Amino acid sequence: MIGGGQLARMAHDAAIPLGVRFRLLADTPQDSASLVVNDVVLGDYRDLETLRRFAAGCDVITFDHEHVPTEHLRTLLAEGVNVRPGPDALVFAQDKGLMRAKLDSIGAPCPRHRLVADPADVTKFAQEGDGYPVVLKTTRGGYDGKGVWVVKDETEAAEPFRAGVAVLAEEKVDFVRELAADVVRSPHGQAVAYPVVESVQKDGICHEVVAPAPDLSPELAAEAQALALRIAGELDITGHLAVELFETRDGRVLVNELAMRPHNSGHWSIDGAVTSQFENHIRAVLDLPLGDPRPRQPWTVMVNVLGGDYPDMYSAYLHCMARDPGLRIHMYGKDVKPGRKVGHVTVFGDDLEDVRERARHAAAYLRGDITE
Amino acid sequence: MIGGGQLARMAHDAAIPLGVRFRLLADTPQDSASLVVNDVVLGDYRDLETLRRFAAGCDVITFDHEHVPTEHLRTLLAEGVNVRPGPDALVFAQDKGLMRAKLDSIGAPCPRHRLVADPADVTKFAQEGDGYPVVLKTTRGGYDGKGVWVVKDETEAAEPFRAGVAVLAEEKVDFVRELAADVVRSPHGQAVAYPVVESVQKDGICHEVVAPAPDLSPELAAEAQALALRIAGELDITGHLAVELFETRDGRVLVNELAMRPHNSGHWSIDGAVTSQFENHIRAVLDLPLGDPRPRQPWTVMVNVLGGDYPDMYSAYLHCMARDPGLRIHMYGKDVKPGRKVGHVTVFGDDLEDVRERARHAAAYLRGDITE
Repeated sequence: MIGGGQLARMAHDAAIPLGVRFRLLADTPQDSASLVVNDVVLGDYRDLETLRRFAAGCDVITFDHEHVPTEHLRTLLAEGVNVRPGPDALVFAQDKGLMRAKLDSIGAPCPRHRLVADPADVTKFAQEGDGYPVVLKTTRGGYDGKGVWVVKDETEAAEPFRAGVAVLAEEKVDFVRELAADVVRSPHGQAVAYPVVESVQKDGICHEVVAPAPDLSPELAAEAQALALRIAGELDITGHLAVELFETRDGRVLVNELAMRPHNSGHWSIDGAVTSQFENHIRAVLDLPLGDPRPRQPWTVMVNVLGGDYPDMYSAYLHCMARDPGLRIHMYGKDVKPGRKVGHVTVFGDDLEDVRERARHAAAYLRGDITE
Repeated sequence: MIGGGQLARMAHDAAIPLGVRFRLLADTPQDSASLVVNDVVLGDYRDLETLRRFAAGCDVITFDHEHVPTEHLRTLLAEGVNVRPGPDALVFAQDKGLMRAKLDSIGAPCPRHRLVADPADVTKFAQEGDGYPVVLKTTRGGYDGKGVWVVKDETEAAEPFRAGVAVLAEEKVDFVRELAADVVRSPHGQAVAYPVVESVQKDGICHEVVAPAPDLSPELAAEAQALALRIAGELDITGHLAVELFETRDGRVLVNELAMRPHNSGHWSIDGAVTSQFENHIRAVLDLPLGDPRPRQPWTVMVNVLGGDYPDMYSAYLHCMARDPGLRIHMYGKDVKPGRKVGHVTVFGDDLEDVRERARHAAAYLRGDITE
């Protein structure tokens, strides 16, 4: 796996019971995954020679993030490396402009959008619809709210163009809530769909996930799952695909973002599903039969633990374990910095209100927002 | 953790989400746990200097097996190392003679037993009860059926004395079945009890575990749990304690063996309980609050995968995943040798017959006993 973040850390954890040998390409020995994986190559994922050296001993390579240059992946593929997902699929997660064009071509519902040339063109885009505010995104390089702006006039619209990357404009969707439809697909075409979840964002970062999404109509849930499976098939994706969706006031879903790797919207599945997203991603990229994605209990709530003002979480960690023996704690081994994802907690059970309260309380306590 | 077997491998897997740094002392880089742990010290656990060097960077040391010399552990303890469980407790799992004497002293029910001096003394022991057959055990060094003999006369009784180790004689209990009561205890005295399980042995090796034990009277289950908790307290054990029990025809339980580490009877808990034995063992030795030991569904069945005649399990591995998407597979990364524990499978659900059939089928298929 290329990339040493928490996704690789959790993928390693899932690879162990499968008996799969897991090799990591990471930036530093202090990366979240470097701290626990035994076979680590240190190097720069933007360097082709490093990638070649890393891939040489691997049956297949896959990703913790979407930042490996597409052209390098095409070279590796041409040289016989199993790259999964392949560059022809991954590019739609790397480039939001290409992603929108592809989704349009297969008839997947999206917010109104187009590439824009400059601030004046943004104003033109706004006027083509309901006016400002408009959402602007750099087509490449963004994640966790970075590379996304909500601008309310042409002056603000100037900012995204400073990066020198193509800019995509999208209507600001007046959504009821955000959903995610996560699916996993293997090279020979087997696919599984996790239940559609509700995803609550804070400052552009996934904060809380409820599985399954409460009060979602069975029809819309089935539609979202079918849409995600169709995207996975049409884009020929191998591995985990997260389709982040807006649920609109008139009862439709629109595609917000795609992620072709394990995703924060699927962390609940480690404790909450028969087979986690990490295990199924590994199974998929190795073309092994996929595991049951169904939830193990009526409700699972996952809340991210963001770094807060207290760098030492130890006493909070003790408190949370003592308060709630059913709490599932996942720490990523990272130094605590304000706003950084340093872990997540999961609670499952029969009573949504109870489960949600416990998960929120633990995450808030670990962050230092409450001390009781 | 000292010892590089599958117990250490699974403990590492449980340590990752807790954010606990896990260091391993193993014999070789090919040990089951060495293959996945990133911080491995290679060395001989019988060598005091090696143990000192290993312990130097650890907050606490614990064990994958019970073979570290007691005197070395006493030295480390005297030098300020946190040894958990401590040598004064661990010695009762290392020496079956001391174990029986201690259990007698606290009134724990055991099979009739005493240390025997020679084959003639074994015959005397037999005549004190119902005669031969008699069970003989070397007091130190045995595991998985090694160091245990069932002898039917004085000639056969000669064999165990050849090792030059003290020999314990025990009545051959006419049991209904074997049970295990697994508990975890932390240094400050918190303890949790897993449901009592039924353990099916084959050739002295744990083969199948059903959690909870079917048709066990609630009174006897509670008695077995209370007994295990009492032993953990009286022996001042830190970490996981497996109390292997005989259920007698007259509805009592007798203590067969003690193991002070994660144990095969608790592997079901990885997929079947809210908190696994491995996680709770780690929490206990670090004196963290313990997690909920309760099962997540009515039935969980774990079956060991023993090496069979086919060294390459890959096609069977594919078959089992494809046949049963709910199957939980745990491979230990070991080379396949006939009779060697190379993995286990777990199935959980509402219907015991269905769950047991699926787990047994997968284990038999992986071993090569059936090919369908």
